Amino acid sequence: MARPARPAGEFQLIEAFVRALPTAGEGVRLGPGDDAALLEAPRRQQLVATVDAVVAGVHFDRRFTPGDIGWKALAVNLSDLAAMGARPLWALVALIVPPGTAAARLRGVAAGLGGCARRHGLAVVGGNVSRGGQLSLTVTVVGAVPRGEALRRDGARPGDLVLVSGTLGDAALGLLPRAAAALTRRQRRPEPRLALGQALRRIATAAIDLSDGLAQDLGHLCAASGVSATLRLADLPRSRAGRAAAARLADPWGPALSGGEDYELCVTVPPSRRVAAQRAAAGAGVALTVVGEVGRGRGVQVLGPDGRARPAGPGHDHLAPRRRGPPF
Amino acid sequence: MARPARPAGEFQLIEAFVRALPTAGEGVRLGPGDDAALLEAPRRQQLVATVDAVVAGVHFDRRFTPGDIGWKALAVNLSDLAAMGARPLWALVALIVPPGTAAARLRGVAAGLGGCARRHGLAVVGGNVSRGGQLSLTVTVVGAVPRGEALRRDGARPGDLVLVSGTLGDAALGLLPRAAAALTRRQRRPEPRLALGQALRRIATAAIDLSDGLAQDLGHLCAASGVSATLRLADLPRSRAGRAAAARLADPWGPALSGGEDYELCVTVPPSRRVAAQRAAAGAGVALTVVGEVGRGRGVQVLGPDGRARPAGPGHDHLAPRRRGPPF
Repeated sequence: MARPARPAGEFQLIEAFVRALPTAGEGVRLGPGDDAALLEAPRRQQLVATVDAVVAGVHFDRRFTPGDIGWKALAVNLSDLAAMGARPLWALVALIVPPGTAAARLRGVAAGLGGCARRHGLAVVGGNVSRGGQLSLTVTVVGAVPRGEALRRDGARPGDLVLVSGTLGDAALGLLPRAAAALTRRQRRPEPRLALGQALRRIATAAIDLSDGLAQDLGHLCAASGVSATLRLADLPRSRAGRAAAARLADPWGPALSGGEDYELCVTVPPSRRVAAQRAAAGAGVALTVVGEVGRGRGVQVLGPDGRARPAGPGHDHLAPRRRGPPF
Repeated sequence: MARPARPAGEFQLIEAFVRALPTAGEGVRLGPGDDAALLEAPRRQQLVATVDAVVAGVHFDRRFTPGDIGWKALAVNLSDLAAMGARPLWALVALIVPPGTAAARLRGVAAGLGGCARRHGLAVVGGNVSRGGQLSLTVTVVGAVPRGEALRRDGARPGDLVLVSGTLGDAALGLLPRAAAALTRRQRRPEPRLALGQALRRIATAAIDLSDGLAQDLGHLCAASGVSATLRLADLPRSRAGRAAAARLADPWGPALSGGEDYELCVTVPPSRRVAAQRAAAGAGVALTVVGEVGRGRGVQVLGPDGRARPAGPGHDHLAPRRRGPPF
């Protein structure tokens, strides 16, 4: 067992890290610096909390700048809040840092994390630094939602429409060699759909964010709701850059169907609420496309462009690494 | 960059892990299984939140059973809540697991974590599993404290007494070869002083938990409060086993003064409140011993058994690894 002495400058390093982060905000009575943060929950709201880690060599590689790493570590968590219809309040950050990591690298991570936090108006209220063999960031976020209005996975009903936000497959395609900048950016700097999630409260019957790919994540939503779903491949929204990159693949629909890490939202909506949902999405600045329907039974069926069923399994693991670990 | 396919059985492994944990409790509207947990904060209370990680080879080694690892990962966090005077409500747990880790090992970690959670009445409301080269557990805990009553580091005033709970040095001595079971237990299964912290609200002027050793942690408290402190070595409370083990060392006071990981509380109390503090501690089932005084100025001065000042620096890094990373 290594027994690291406390290296000179460690506290200074932490101070520099914290200085790059917004530490004040709504409900923050005491931020970093004591044994724990002291927080005031907003009245008549419920809290929403989740945790996720990003690990070097698993969730990011040398193509990620330090800023990308920090941004993504927070963004993947905020995507979970988006899927619950919550607005973000606070984050706590635990770093594991290999000995000898350059101070500039950590400052870069902090700058990316801080940039994402500022963009979405949340405060980093606490954290921790440990030594270890591999850089990792574990982020816990807490948000708020009006009581009883949280979006959940378990409310989809037969007859509901299945809709997805934005475009699919871009993040997975962003891992390919010589990928277009529009694609690598979606891989490294995902934009959690927070405004959309909040706009869909009281409209959507169920929601999940797309970390593992639409086929798999919609499968989780269906399992939680006790329903099945049918997806139409030809209706999956794809970006121009995504279509161009996918056209060179053996299965051009693979990234949109099963590529992970798009961090878009997949929601179910009764047909009578489709227009309301799409108006709400337009107000949040993002497209919301009908891609299928909810049915009775279980499982996800995928209809190819020819209208015939095709296997829905992942099948594209080379393009669809599970970057964010599975939650529990 | 490794691109792990999702191994068969991974979700089953997570299910087994979660089954060993208490997931229901006060304020828990939706526990593990959705994108995030849905929680209701207690009325008229403030929330207290902190995060800590334990990493293989740094914070635990082969002498730790899987149950010890899970217990300690939660206990070190609860110690931070204790230092704030908070009662625990919820935890979120992020695991990084090396490929090939035996399922039984993870079940053991869960059993230890669950045991500590049940003992202290908190619910594990969410989590995450990622792959990585080194086992680590990052735990975020949230507790509650009546509004305005949290203990903080920054309230100590010149003239206050310095008191510590329990006995000091045992956990560091528990790392020595052939250490007594009473000492190894304090190293591997620390008992956070939650009842004591709550009992000292409205009595103590400041508090901190002892993770890095009394000299260093009291130094943090003094820095936050803008005061100095004097410690009397001869007054530091030590267990019978601790005294026996330390007697064989070149500096028999080293572990009590600078050994880390006791997870006792160090508090400051005006002299007029000493009796109230010690009665409250007795009610919480733990001794609370006066070990020094707060003064003007800055820094921590240590008086040896002969009444003469001695250097307060760590000086015992071989016995005092920083097991819990520094918070920010």
